Amino acid sequence: MSAPKKVVLAYSGGLDTSIILKWLQTEYGCEVVTFTADLGQGEELEPARAKAEMMGASAIHIEDVREEFVRDFVFPMFRANAVYEGIYLLGTSIARPLISKRLVEIAEMEGADAIAHGATGKGNDQVRFELAAYALNPDIKVIAPWREWDLTSRTRLIEFAEQHQIPVAKDKRGEAPFSVDANLLHTSSEGKVLEDPAVEAPEYVYQRTVAPEDAPNEPEFIEVGFERGDAVSINGEAMSPATILTKLNEYGGKHGIGRLDLVENRFVGMKSRGIYETPGGTILLEAHRGIEQITLDSGAGHLKDSLMPRYAELIYNGFWFSPEREMLQAAIDKSQEHVSGTVKLKLYKGSATTVARWSENSLYSEAHVTFEEDAGAYDQTDAQGFIQLNALRLKLLAARNRRNK
Amino acid sequence: MSAPKKVVLAYSGGLDTSIILKWLQTEYGCEVVTFTADLGQGEELEPARAKAEMMGASAIHIEDVREEFVRDFVFPMFRANAVYEGIYLLGTSIARPLISKRLVEIAEMEGADAIAHGATGKGNDQVRFELAAYALNPDIKVIAPWREWDLTSRTRLIEFAEQHQIPVAKDKRGEAPFSVDANLLHTSSEGKVLEDPAVEAPEYVYQRTVAPEDAPNEPEFIEVGFERGDAVSINGEAMSPATILTKLNEYGGKHGIGRLDLVENRFVGMKSRGIYETPGGTILLEAHRGIEQITLDSGAGHLKDSLMPRYAELIYNGFWFSPEREMLQAAIDKSQEHVSGTVKLKLYKGSATTVARWSENSLYSEAHVTFEEDAGAYDQTDAQGFIQLNALRLKLLAARNRRNK
Amino acid sequence: MSAPKKVVLAYSGGLDTSIILKWLQTEYGCEVVTFTADLGQGEELEPARAKAEMMGASAIHIEDVREEFVRDFVFPMFRANAVYEGIYLLGTSIARPLISKRLVEIAEMEGADAIAHGATGKGNDQVRFELAAYALNPDIKVIAPWREWDLTSRTRLIEFAEQHQIPVAKDKRGEAPFSVDANLLHTSSEGKVLEDPAVEAPEYVYQRTVAPEDAPNEPEFIEVGFERGDAVSINGEAMSPATILTKLNEYGGKHGIGRLDLVENRFVGMKSRGIYETPGGTILLEAHRGIEQITLDSGAGHLKDSLMPRYAELIYNGFWFSPEREMLQAAIDKSQEHVSGTVKLKLYKGSATTVARWSENSLYSEAHVTFEEDAGAYDQTDAQGFIQLNALRLKLLAARNRRNK
Amino acid sequence: MSAPKKVVLAYSGGLDTSIILKWLQTEYGCEVVTFTADLGQGEELEPARAKAEMMGASAIHIEDVREEFVRDFVFPMFRANAVYEGIYLLGTSIARPLISKRLVEIAEMEGADAIAHGATGKGNDQVRFELAAYALNPDIKVIAPWREWDLTSRTRLIEFAEQHQIPVAKDKRGEAPFSVDANLLHTSSEGKVLEDPAVEAPEYVYQRTVAPEDAPNEPEFIEVGFERGDAVSINGEAMSPATILTKLNEYGGKHGIGRLDLVENRFVGMKSRGIYETPGGTILLEAHRGIEQITLDSGAGHLKDSLMPRYAELIYNGFWFSPEREMLQAAIDKSQEHVSGTVKLKLYKGSATTVARWSENSLYSEAHVTFEEDAGAYDQTDAQGFIQLNALRLKLLAARNRRNK
Repeated sequence: MSAPKKVVLAYSGGLDTSIILKWLQTEYGCEVVTFTADLGQGEELEPARAKAEMMGASAIHIEDVREEFVRDFVFPMFRANAVYEGIYLLGTSIARPLISKRLVEIAEMEGADAIAHGATGKGNDQVRFELAAYALNPDIKVIAPWREWDLTSRTRLIEFAEQHQIPVAKDKRGEAPFSVDANLLHTSSEGKVLEDPAVEAPEYVYQRTVAPEDAPNEPEFIEVGFERGDAVSINGEAMSPATILTKLNEYGGKHGIGRLDLVENRFVGMKSRGIYETPGGTILLEAHRGIEQITLDSGAGHLKDSLMPRYAELIYNGFWFSPEREMLQAAIDKSQEHVSGTVKLKLYKGSATTVARWSENSLYSEAHVTFEEDAGAYDQTDAQGFIQLNALRLKLLAARNRRNK
Repeated sequence: MSAPKKVVLAYSGGLDTSIILKWLQTEYGCEVVTFTADLGQGEELEPARAKAEMMGASAIHIEDVREEFVRDFVFPMFRANAVYEGIYLLGTSIARPLISKRLVEIAEMEGADAIAHGATGKGNDQVRFELAAYALNPDIKVIAPWREWDLTSRTRLIEFAEQHQIPVAKDKRGEAPFSVDANLLHTSSEGKVLEDPAVEAPEYVYQRTVAPEDAPNEPEFIEVGFERGDAVSINGEAMSPATILTKLNEYGGKHGIGRLDLVENRFVGMKSRGIYETPGGTILLEAHRGIEQITLDSGAGHLKDSLMPRYAELIYNGFWFSPEREMLQAAIDKSQEHVSGTVKLKLYKGSATTVARWSENSLYSEAHVTFEEDAGAYDQTDAQGFIQLNALRLKLLAARNRRNK
Repeated sequence: MSAPKKVVLAYSGGLDTSIILKWLQTEYGCEVVTFTADLGQGEELEPARAKAEMMGASAIHIEDVREEFVRDFVFPMFRANAVYEGIYLLGTSIARPLISKRLVEIAEMEGADAIAHGATGKGNDQVRFELAAYALNPDIKVIAPWREWDLTSRTRLIEFAEQHQIPVAKDKRGEAPFSVDANLLHTSSEGKVLEDPAVEAPEYVYQRTVAPEDAPNEPEFIEVGFERGDAVSINGEAMSPATILTKLNEYGGKHGIGRLDLVENRFVGMKSRGIYETPGGTILLEAHRGIEQITLDSGAGHLKDSLMPRYAELIYNGFWFSPEREMLQAAIDKSQEHVSGTVKLKLYKGSATTVARWSENSLYSEAHVTFEEDAGAYDQTDAQGFIQLNALRLKLLAARNRRNK
Repeated sequence: MSAPKKVVLAYSGGLDTSIILKWLQTEYGCEVVTFTADLGQGEELEPARAKAEMMGASAIHIEDVREEFVRDFVFPMFRANAVYEGIYLLGTSIARPLISKRLVEIAEMEGADAIAHGATGKGNDQVRFELAAYALNPDIKVIAPWREWDLTSRTRLIEFAEQHQIPVAKDKRGEAPFSVDANLLHTSSEGKVLEDPAVEAPEYVYQRTVAPEDAPNEPEFIEVGFERGDAVSINGEAMSPATILTKLNEYGGKHGIGRLDLVENRFVGMKSRGIYETPGGTILLEAHRGIEQITLDSGAGHLKDSLMPRYAELIYNGFWFSPEREMLQAAIDKSQEHVSGTVKLKLYKGSATTVARWSENSLYSEAHVTFEEDAGAYDQTDAQGFIQLNALRLKLLAARNRRNK
């Protein structure tokens, strides 16, 4: 790879990406454009502008992408009820392709030939950033300083910062007790004090949910409205995608919902332990399943269930922008045409549970299922033939096996 | 089908199956043998003996099958983390094949040519009973009185009972407000007051779990030990399969764990709403996932995840005794060879959550994952090549699509 | 089911459906409307009109649906490379939903409350006809005379025909040595002389292909052009869907291509043996695979391969008009956007084989694959990291297993 | 990676691996042990011994592994009917893990710390060799000279050979017009004259099959006997696994069977074009499908079909020794318990087709399928209930959709 001339850097304004900004300038003698996105991580972005200016960024892009994030990434994923390895809601995975997409778009706009990110060489995020970037621009260069440089200890990083007049906040001099990623969907914490999966995570790791023990002693009930598979209202009030997720996060955070302590398999081959908080997403998944229960027929539902693990794995592994994810999305979206209606949920001490659901599109037929007289809706003798023909092959098998014993 | 000469009846001792016993005798003039199983439903069985004797059963079989139930049916199913439609733990489905197996075995022992069950023509249980029976004996006759007789109202049932001197307890004269099935794994409630899925289930429906609101205000922690995928101990104390499940049920019941309000798709084609309580099973599933997280590699785990929906569907639909269920079981069991170790769980107000796990078989490598210096365990530059080759096809696609635009 | 008032009958003009026409009139005293479709079965349809008129059909519909058949049913199916049980090209299965669709549409147009078909109670076609009809009109009645009437032997059928002045051709008095279904995609033969799968099918069973031994001694080469997954031209000449399939049938028939002797699993539970001839379809499948080889990336291709068996099973079982088939179709169609180009095939003595293929959308990169100097297109050292990270979990497994032995 | 002390080299005796032998000695100053396997590639092995001795190999292992190859690798794979991307019989892929297994075993025996292979950095074989090796010994070093050295042109290779007194046959001085891999299952040819997929492969590429045009003008019929999924006899004569495959290769070669011209997706990300000849394997696949048709029930068969693409992909990608391949194998092997019997095949001008099959384990029931009177084996009225209940969800869907239009 020839040296980059102009790089668009995913820039948070924090110490690490500030060091990267400077390192790119000094290492490659190239221009650096910064991109800072508001994904709902809950930090102010304007300080990033000042820092980037101070460090000589040749252009500065700061954007609020929360609505795009929820509408075009989070919601499509939730249509699939996607969970990785049975339980993980993919909060980090789903944000990466959006960042790469904007990096690549800004690169084209700014005439940059490279992008750079601050993910390490051990994790999944490098893969997600880079696969997305290459899928959108096959000629883009991607620089991953953590895989390249020799700043391999905290001490050397701080030295480099001081050498280059990068301000280092006092609390950043030592190492953080764990590492955090956050966006509107979730907060993840990893590393250091969490590295031994046999040791419970300390309570101070959790950042956006109260402990269930500290949640209100009374349950709270909310109603989530859906249209074509996407949440569109809470308690009857229509809201934008990002607003809904923000609001659900408030509910979930208050009731201690969405904490997860997980050992997962990284795409790069090792296991890692993470603490995830997905308060609103956990409510949303429960609600979406609730509305599908009455609006999706079994053929569609079971097909979705069988496709989901692969779909979730693709997102986890960084293949959002891939033909196979788009094929699966086409199938999933097709299934959501009638997934509209309302779900009532109970929020209490760490749990969100569906307690009622209704829809004009409901496929539930009390006439068919009733224990009462059903006025001919269902003919019980049909079951005889249904069972006989389903049994036929099993009978033939049993007869064969008896005969040959 | 020619008339049966001798029938083995799945007999609970309750009013409905007592009516069936009498009806079989009068309708077919045949001998009736009764089979009453202790599956952990929590009822005394000896009264069933007296009643069967009184009604002229030609032989009476009463058996405690709890250990067989958990060891040969529940545990194999939990090795798969089986859930139907995302959340249902299959508590009713998994008990039916065992009952059929014993009915068929007793029929062969007793020289009976038929078996009979008390499941209706609208539900899944008829299918499960009958598919299992035919798979085990292709020549057996199966009688499903609810699909045949004309006792189609409560009034007529009671009349028939009185006509034939079958004692009717006072509280059985009216209709129950809902219908219940129970065994060691779960209790399900359906029908009547539960028929409208838009209406919350009344609290009195729940039978073996306290409401989370009424559960202890302090969390409780337990440790579940596993060997080759099966739970073998609680808090270090070795126990038999049925004992473990019984004990987990106590923990779960006390902490309000395992309640589920679900609209599901029946195999016979309509949707139904059920309230399930699976206290011990819910803890067991969480614990099993916890131990798999550190002992199963991603290849095995992801394959299991992708097979699970089909496996669960087979059990739900009644295909326990089928070649395809046995094939999947072979695959699943193969994966469990190293799934041994201990999981620590927190039980609190409706939730069971893994907080720690350890195992001599752990695949978790702190050396590889650490944020600290890893002494060469992992070479970060490998990620470069890994990403490049995973990206190659995406680059070729992107280049093709650009070229042709 | 109450008696039908007006029935639309799938009417071939042959003896059997003529008997059905009359039987419906006499049995139910209802009006009968006939529907006769040209699906490319190779029979003249006008005689059907005269017969239907003579027998008092209240309306007569005769339609050439060949283009719709190929465009909306055959081609979408071939986009999936659908084969049932590894080899069967689904020629009968794919025609049934179209017939049902037209029956239901004509019923609505004519104010009929029922449809009727001539499929027996043992086969798949009854299921396909009826599932499609119910999926399109949940209130339609479906009459399947073969499951209802008592005309259960050839003798009684002929008697009924004579009794009602239905002309019986001499060669129809005895039983046919086997039963045939044909349309533009295939001819199937079943039953009688074919019932023993241990006995070779006699040559006279084959109807539209020469024996490979009798095919030309020289191979013939053709080029099939594709656009978005569908065949659009032969040897550079653009043709309509039905014309292309007709033309491919000529090529295939002449070269003895597309014969299949199969024992398959019917949806209704038993195995049956069929002789299929799918001359054009066999060429089309090979050609479609050939063009996908260069235009589809591996992610899309492998996903398609994994979805195909389920998709084929759905079509075989009669679930063309089902949400899950439509979901899969959405995924498959999404994959075909760039499947355009040309395939050259060799036809010779029973085989159609791809020998060359080219496309503007080709993903094949000689620059990457070449054994020659590749000018930096591919960096061989990337493979090192790719292998190391793919191996990591296997190494961790091996280390664990060694440690614990 | 520290320098190897003793290396076991997969040594063919040819020029390229002789150069590698010498290069390892000079580059690393290490001992080299050679391993030469008879996998049925059709070359004499003793010359390899003389050459290895001459070049100073510190130990020489020459082994006939043909029986192990067919029994433990080829046959298990054929139980699955494995084909990659619809048609490729995986002839190269399946041989690599066996070679790695022996390399690792010899390394342990000889006290070597490394193995080496002659696969390039662009292909799949490097991945297969190395994943298998690491899965069997996580501490082994693997040396892939083609990814390391600077002998990147034919000229430099020849120079190196001459410099080190490695004899170079005259016909090896220039470049081969294509590259070949062969074993008992297949011969593959790639590269150079084959690199343009739009250009037909020249006839001289084919090495072990006659052109169909040159095959006998008369068909030949053979009978292949199976036990539990594996071929055990031809024309009634019992044979060992390798003998059967050898014999089938003769039949196939003679009749021009098993040629394949394919563009496939390599695991490393690019497409490549290969010419494969799998004469015996092509017959074996057809025969195995034939015997499964009558001995496998639809549940088992359809599950196998749905698992196969993933199984084939695992083998292609080099994951033979992986938990997920072993899980799938367990499922597949479970299905083969009754797959015994005989298939009669017609071999003619490039095609092998099943024309008859019989088995004591047959599930085919003429009694059920017959068009004749079936003496009550099958009750056609059962189909009514079967269809009604399969249709129920479709009716509910259709009613919902009509209601809401």
